[in-house]
Amino acid sequence: MGTSGPDLFFAFDRSRPRGLRVQIEDGLRSAIRSGRLAAGSPVPSTRALAADLGITRKVVVEAYDQLIAEGYLLSRQGAGTVVQRVPAVAQAVESAAATPAVEVDFRPGRPDLTLFPRAAWAKAARSALRSMPTADFADEDPRGLPVLRQALVDYLGRVRGVSADPAQVIVCAGFGHGFDLAVHALGARRYALEDPGYPGPRGHLASLGIPFDAVPVDGDGLMVSRLRETAATVAVVTPAHQSPTGVVLPPDRRRELIEWARDVDGYVIEDDYDAEYRYDRRPVGTLQGVAPERVVYCGTTSKTLGSGVRLGWLVVPPELVDPITAARRDGSTSTILQATFAELLTCGDFDRHLRRTRLVYRERRDALVGAVARWLPGVVPSGISAGLNMLLTLPGDESVLVDAAMERGVRVYPLADFSSESERAGIVLGYGALPLGKALRGARLLGAAMG
Amino acid sequence: MGTSGPDLFFAFDRSRPRGLRVQIEDGLRSAIRSGRLAAGSPVPSTRALAADLGITRKVVVEAYDQLIAEGYLLSRQGAGTVVQRVPAVAQAVESAAATPAVEVDFRPGRPDLTLFPRAAWAKAARSALRSMPTADFADEDPRGLPVLRQALVDYLGRVRGVSADPAQVIVCAGFGHGFDLAVHALGARRYALEDPGYPGPRGHLASLGIPFDAVPVDGDGLMVSRLRETAATVAVVTPAHQSPTGVVLPPDRRRELIEWARDVDGYVIEDDYDAEYRYDRRPVGTLQGVAPERVVYCGTTSKTLGSGVRLGWLVVPPELVDPITAARRDGSTSTILQATFAELLTCGDFDRHLRRTRLVYRERRDALVGAVARWLPGVVPSGISAGLNMLLTLPGDESVLVDAAMERGVRVYPLADFSSESERAGIVLGYGALPLGKALRGARLLGAAMG
Repeated sequence: MGTSGPDLFFAFDRSRPRGLRVQIEDGLRSAIRSGRLAAGSPVPSTRALAADLGITRKVVVEAYDQLIAEGYLLSRQGAGTVVQRVPAVAQAVESAAATPAVEVDFRPGRPDLTLFPRAAWAKAARSALRSMPTADFADEDPRGLPVLRQALVDYLGRVRGVSADPAQVIVCAGFGHGFDLAVHALGARRYALEDPGYPGPRGHLASLGIPFDAVPVDGDGLMVSRLRETAATVAVVTPAHQSPTGVVLPPDRRRELIEWARDVDGYVIEDDYDAEYRYDRRPVGTLQGVAPERVVYCGTTSKTLGSGVRLGWLVVPPELVDPITAARRDGSTSTILQATFAELLTCGDFDRHLRRTRLVYRERRDALVGAVARWLPGVVPSGISAGLNMLLTLPGDESVLVDAAMERGVRVYPLADFSSESERAGIVLGYGALPLGKALRGARLLGAAMG
Repeated sequence: MGTSGPDLFFAFDRSRPRGLRVQIEDGLRSAIRSGRLAAGSPVPSTRALAADLGITRKVVVEAYDQLIAEGYLLSRQGAGTVVQRVPAVAQAVESAAATPAVEVDFRPGRPDLTLFPRAAWAKAARSALRSMPTADFADEDPRGLPVLRQALVDYLGRVRGVSADPAQVIVCAGFGHGFDLAVHALGARRYALEDPGYPGPRGHLASLGIPFDAVPVDGDGLMVSRLRETAATVAVVTPAHQSPTGVVLPPDRRRELIEWARDVDGYVIEDDYDAEYRYDRRPVGTLQGVAPERVVYCGTTSKTLGSGVRLGWLVVPPELVDPITAARRDGSTSTILQATFAELLTCGDFDRHLRRTRLVYRERRDALVGAVARWLPGVVPSGISAGLNMLLTLPGDESVLVDAAMERGVRVYPLADFSSESERAGIVLGYGALPLGKALRGARLLGAAMG
């Protein structure tokens, strides 16, 4: 299992969701452009770097190949890979390389930004600015405005079964930011991450030199029996809709997970990233509601509104409130932003927005499921009952399909991007941001790519 | 000179401006309430802690006395000071203690929040939300939106003589946040801080264990000759209006400072915190405009709008852009907030707001200068040509006056709060947030306190 990453991967410390390969590419490009990696310096071997980061070597090889193609790296026979002088045209090469005629991009985790409720937000902002107490134009409480923390407790209690006092709520910038604050507050501990799983926490922990274990996810979600074999005392999980497989953690696993946390005197970090989008049945309640003393709950507006809003929240056990606020470097979240979102929550417009977008995403999901059945017969999508992505499990190596699809202008995301083991093969299709016609065309081209 | 602080002072890592004493009190209260400091644990002696933080012992003694009065600490004859069990009524005691019948609070660095341009902000938000490109609802660039970075370059070039390309601008949450990002990007270096000076950076560096030297400020600002005697390679300065003395750094000192930075291959961090408020002559240009390759320039809306807005900016040499954005933990600043402020800048409403508030603050300054002349004859205020504070230099120990004023319901801030040496005595009066009548009454009561 991977532990600390080399210094050059400081760029992992971002909260933006990205594939691991893209993160490696960006981290290296940035290190080379800034001069932190000088021309002629050797970079780690693909094998060493993959081991360091706890990912498959293939991902690293692909990242290096891309950077060699762009002129950032140079592979020398028998002498490893070194940094090349940054070509004058690096910028141009890079932009060209970043957009190789992709017609349909199934990038996961992205909502449709055209659905952003511009008018409702403007109305909420006007209303908030009219009624904000004068003192709220200063930032006194690093946890956030009482009015928003109360509105969040009401909303999360109603919609997600979260059980908390507003004093346990900390408003932050989103999952990545909240995760970072929690990690700093929890101090020296070993982490367990879902495998496959959202790559954000893995890169983040690696950049901080914090040790972690990858724990397998099977058809019922995180294998708690395997978690018990590790020395971890913090587990990062996506119980409502496992990222990226879409599995809902069933009741017995939930019970086991909470028992584990109590047994090791540990915590569960619950990443409730897209639970608002559930199509076929009632939402599954949160772990937090069952064991509030053992769970650090993280929610975000990144999937419901857009990651540019930069508004999320933690609900934490009381003893963690002060350590977490003390770890803040940004002071607090903008009170204007907070007051506006509180207004959006309490006036009902956020609920209306969720109902409206849920219908849109459901329609897209149904259409894509139909198109997969038609154009990729025999491939059964999973994780379709919620969220903005689905998983297509494949029999053999997924990279052949990824490449063949790319040749047809369709970008799909290999399961390897989410995993440190390559036992399972599959691709993740994000459909939230894709208009119907594009998604259908993408599925057809994907079918052609499968041959 | 102080170096690293003990772990319990992690609370210093906030960007909110506070007196050192208040920061120590808050840090200890929080550590005790959260259980990080258990009942019975010894706390450092006042002498040791003062040395650690590089401040006068008096500040620590006052903080400890307050915490003893509140029941958090217990002073035992011959056995030092230890943590007391948190009293059940701690919360109540604390709130009561935090507001001891203060009628007039001359707290420095605070603008009048009642002047916040609510209508103009709401209008800018509506306009921004109407015209924002869809893609801006995601956060792609950790430096910030191009539209705001361009608007800032225009504004800062026009008003502050800043010389930069938008690619060198990084939008952040304010000075504390920007300073933290810069410190992480600059890596292992020794810092020089103004003495007396704004306590934020001192506490911040102490909490990170980063070494620093306090360099004296005389009637002409930072003594660059004394800076040269240190091993520092980063100097944090307030050249436009030294905090808290109000001195404007004259041309020869500016030249010397830039020469120093070039000689040591170092950087100057320019905290341009309140340069918008200058009353009697044209604003002094920035150091950044003179030596853009050696200066990390920091600006903020905390003084012009309010610290709750959480919007500031760095203008940095090109080689620091990538390291600084890589150090971000919050992803980026809310794009809605950014687009709104860009609109406020470009539509002229921000300029109108500055003109309006400048008149208000100037009137308050004039009135307070007059009242000081009347009620505190012989005491000459300095640093009055700009900003929201003035300094009253005193002949002897300032703490007598601070206490006597407090007995009359007037809170003033001793120069010791800003200094690690106690050679000079004085008090800082913030007048920005005080209505005229209150400031005048405060000056009268202060005169009575001086006897």
